Amino acid sequence: MPAYSAPTKDTQFLLHDVLGVSTCDIPGYGDLDRDFTAAIIEEAGKISRELLAPLNQIGDTEGCTLENGAVRTPTGFKAAFDEVRAGGWTGLDMPEQYGGQDLPFVIGIIVTEFFSAANQAYAMYQGLTHGAASAILAHGTEQLKATYLPPMIACDWTGTMNLTEAHCGTDLGLMRTRAEPQQDGSYAITGQKIFISAGEHDLAENIVHLVLARIPGGPEGIKGVSLFIVPKFLPNDDGSPGARNGVSCGKLEEKMGIHGNSTCVMDFDGATGWLLGEKHKGMRAMFTMMNEARIGVGVQGLALADAAYQNAVEYARERLQGRDVTGARNPDGPADPLIVHPDIRRNLMAQKSFVEGARAFTLWGAQLSDRAHRLNDDEADALLSLLTPVIKGFQTDIGFAMTVEAQQVFGGHGYIEQTGMSQFARDARIAMIYEGANGVQALDLVGRKLPRNGGKAMLAFFGLVKGFIKENEGNEELKSGFLDPLKAASKDLQAAAMYFVAEGARNPTNALAGSHDFMHLFGHVCLGLMWAEMAKASYAALDTGTSDKEFYRTKLTTGRFYMARQLPATAMHLARIQSGAAPVMELDAAHF
Amino acid sequence: MPAYSAPTKDTQFLLHDVLGVSTCDIPGYGDLDRDFTAAIIEEAGKISRELLAPLNQIGDTEGCTLENGAVRTPTGFKAAFDEVRAGGWTGLDMPEQYGGQDLPFVIGIIVTEFFSAANQAYAMYQGLTHGAASAILAHGTEQLKATYLPPMIACDWTGTMNLTEAHCGTDLGLMRTRAEPQQDGSYAITGQKIFISAGEHDLAENIVHLVLARIPGGPEGIKGVSLFIVPKFLPNDDGSPGARNGVSCGKLEEKMGIHGNSTCVMDFDGATGWLLGEKHKGMRAMFTMMNEARIGVGVQGLALADAAYQNAVEYARERLQGRDVTGARNPDGPADPLIVHPDIRRNLMAQKSFVEGARAFTLWGAQLSDRAHRLNDDEADALLSLLTPVIKGFQTDIGFAMTVEAQQVFGGHGYIEQTGMSQFARDARIAMIYEGANGVQALDLVGRKLPRNGGKAMLAFFGLVKGFIKENEGNEELKSGFLDPLKAASKDLQAAAMYFVAEGARNPTNALAGSHDFMHLFGHVCLGLMWAEMAKASYAALDTGTSDKEFYRTKLTTGRFYMARQLPATAMHLARIQSGAAPVMELDAAHF
Repeated sequence: MPAYSAPTKDTQFLLHDVLGVSTCDIPGYGDLDRDFTAAIIEEAGKISRELLAPLNQIGDTEGCTLENGAVRTPTGFKAAFDEVRAGGWTGLDMPEQYGGQDLPFVIGIIVTEFFSAANQAYAMYQGLTHGAASAILAHGTEQLKATYLPPMIACDWTGTMNLTEAHCGTDLGLMRTRAEPQQDGSYAITGQKIFISAGEHDLAENIVHLVLARIPGGPEGIKGVSLFIVPKFLPNDDGSPGARNGVSCGKLEEKMGIHGNSTCVMDFDGATGWLLGEKHKGMRAMFTMMNEARIGVGVQGLALADAAYQNAVEYARERLQGRDVTGARNPDGPADPLIVHPDIRRNLMAQKSFVEGARAFTLWGAQLSDRAHRLNDDEADALLSLLTPVIKGFQTDIGFAMTVEAQQVFGGHGYIEQTGMSQFARDARIAMIYEGANGVQALDLVGRKLPRNGGKAMLAFFGLVKGFIKENEGNEELKSGFLDPLKAASKDLQAAAMYFVAEGARNPTNALAGSHDFMHLFGHVCLGLMWAEMAKASYAALDTGTSDKEFYRTKLTTGRFYMARQLPATAMHLARIQSGAAPVMELDAAHF
Repeated sequence: MPAYSAPTKDTQFLLHDVLGVSTCDIPGYGDLDRDFTAAIIEEAGKISRELLAPLNQIGDTEGCTLENGAVRTPTGFKAAFDEVRAGGWTGLDMPEQYGGQDLPFVIGIIVTEFFSAANQAYAMYQGLTHGAASAILAHGTEQLKATYLPPMIACDWTGTMNLTEAHCGTDLGLMRTRAEPQQDGSYAITGQKIFISAGEHDLAENIVHLVLARIPGGPEGIKGVSLFIVPKFLPNDDGSPGARNGVSCGKLEEKMGIHGNSTCVMDFDGATGWLLGEKHKGMRAMFTMMNEARIGVGVQGLALADAAYQNAVEYARERLQGRDVTGARNPDGPADPLIVHPDIRRNLMAQKSFVEGARAFTLWGAQLSDRAHRLNDDEADALLSLLTPVIKGFQTDIGFAMTVEAQQVFGGHGYIEQTGMSQFARDARIAMIYEGANGVQALDLVGRKLPRNGGKAMLAFFGLVKGFIKENEGNEELKSGFLDPLKAASKDLQAAAMYFVAEGARNPTNALAGSHDFMHLFGHVCLGLMWAEMAKASYAALDTGTSDKEFYRTKLTTGRFYMARQLPATAMHLARIQSGAAPVMELDAAHF
């Protein structure tokens, strides 16, 4: 059975050596000293390792079952959820007023990473509840907040997002589910939603569905869509779950992975719902929490890549196969361990350098989110908006690819379900699709975020890279190993952005045909920047005589791999972008 | 349910417009005129489409079952196998003497592509039989050939390859299965083999296992391994299957994909076997047919990519979602089809240009194989040996990635098993692993094939590219769209080879750390060359006034995409290679 050990040390390094959380000016960050974060991180790591990871393969094998409208989750999920709830792990970054702990988002995202890596299907039950609660927090009336937030933040009630219908996923303007106004101010919701994660299950006493629907007579298309709260059981006056509402699970989908999470077809048959936010402004209400939700999916890319990587390393150290071409390393054994072979190392280094770089990128994004929300910092908000599709799209694309690489280390054993390596790849695959498919992330990035306010956020990013390079180029080692490659990669990114400005104005397809490549180019530059920052912190720690030299030296070696081996991808993406729209758009649809 | 339509037109184009099969000097090719190949190809296409593809998803869902030592294949597999057998499709490129049709390998590989695309799990039962029969043909005594080849070529008996043991896959020198010589000249085989595809099933009256085992007292390691024929039922004197032999299936593996093919743990308990080839030369006997077997796996990469692509195109044409950014294309409908969106097109063009390029590369490889065998052409043999790991490794890596891209077109629907898109990816994944994992292909390429005879075959390849460019650069359109990018990519390949010569001599890890990138760089140059040749043929057809202008224009558009968008990967691979071994080898195994 695969194992998972949470990267507590690396996380502490990022929080303190790189992001300097306890000394920065964001309200609430002052408490985050090394001991405080260590206590949380170590405990979250323990739960991941001992409670959630052992259930991961069981969840995949058993899956969920639907009988008479009730969904049973895999063996052990309920007990684990009870234990996590009891430990107070469900409302870390939620307001104290409603039972949360009011910790920064950066702490919440760390726990999300650990739990997702240990058991993504499990973590989704919590994650969706968090997302739904965030929407209620942002848009609910006082009464709705008082009714729903305390049980949701405690995860006594869980939440869902009901957006997709059979004929529309990305294009929600086509939606048909309708909401008829009732005399008492509520709405009667009727329609069918599909792909509803955690739509029905046995983990909680109530399930709170957030449902996008159309109020008859409203505007056509996306501008006529409103958001509703539709609980499985209607709350009594005392807040306890009361009468059954007209919503039910009609079917469970058979999926490639995340079998332990129930993916439901949800039927709404005149179900009672309450408007959340303004009429016809349902999309706005959904989108307010989109940055955090997308970072939450982006972190799954690196989480599953890390879990897969850890098992690949273990296997590569233990499996004896072939001899080191430069001479036997295990001369008394029948063969050398796999890890002596250059191509196995190439593979493992690609995984390791991605996982650690992406973790840094994610935590930086979370810090920007905290800065935006806790300091009302519009520049941080704009920069985060720009980076969010990159965190989501790039990290889940590469994260999936890295689980495939990890599987490859196992040879034939990786293809057998027993080793669990297939599950990592199958589970990781979904993150490229949900919460906005990665093509939509690329479109959001190039079509919306990049040009916003005359490209102000993009220019701010370039300024930040340039400033970092200028400030640190006195360090010769940092310069040659990190700053020079970062500068080259950043130039590629600038050239791509300039191409979009010049050619995209003439025809938007010139930009959109390169959107996917731009997202990846941008992702590499971000990870390059992260590695340069991590290298700077590592040199500093080594200079001041740290007692843990190996950690920092390993960090530098890993970073040099990323800069030398992975960053050259930027030139390829730029060349593709600069080839323009013609190769992509020329073929008539009939001739594909 | 996904559908599959065999690319008969494209295959005819390759055979006649590009490879000129009927006019080339290879014995047996003279018969391959357009009508003759059309008859075979159309009929093979029909079987793929109507008989095999409809069973593909059934095979995935039902899988194989083991009860009391007997394996049941999925519903319909037996009837389909009977029909294929009856149609004479199992011995196309086998000698007439033993019941085959003596057609060239290039025809055999086309049928392998179609059948694999339609139903890979099914096609493997045939493919493994073909491989085992080839080994017997090459190394069997007259008696063994007379006994085994006729029923195997007819697929009344099927074949298997028993190499892997639990503790050794790539490193077969560690194998423990032993073969004790018996008085009658036979051997008693004892041991356990794992991952034996088609090891036990209900499709044939006998199963002929080729088993690698060790004769006690022989040399240690790989030099003490011999190859044996171990039938499930010992043949009677009249050739009919007689007494049950001491070989049985102990377990079926649960796999990520190819569920319709039985993957068996095989237990040999003093089973009777006969030596095939020379004592202790088992590996040599296995390797004689390795080029063809590896091309047979390489073709699976493009086959599954094509099947997935066809369904993605269909979905992209029908699914209405969003509007063309330059103006509605389907103004009377609720939305435009997906195929109007630039990033969907980018995705589809990547698939299409890979599939068609890889098909050309594969058929060229098969033609080289025919040239090598039918003309005893050593140069063709050497070139094919060099190209074979590229066909296998590059095409299965990219082929898998393309099935993932095709799945992405479906959004959430691609993650649901019902649409069949997950199955294409799960099935395609195995081809990167079996018949030598792709890391081993890269090692074979850089460590063995490239330096052989002072790099003679590599130089021959460069000469071929150079010659083609020189010969055709008078054609201005061909030059700018195809020859110039090919020249640039080929220069990157030369620089990489030179780097290996210069640095690899100093330390072999300098070359091996770049082996995977070299394999991919080489693959892109090969596909670039194929596209240049296909473009030349297309311009020629258009110049001579073909009646099917759209076919050739589509070919040129698709080729221009590959040259402009995919070939720039060569510079990235070169940069990685030239970064040398240090980033890959530096980290101590303990610090991963």
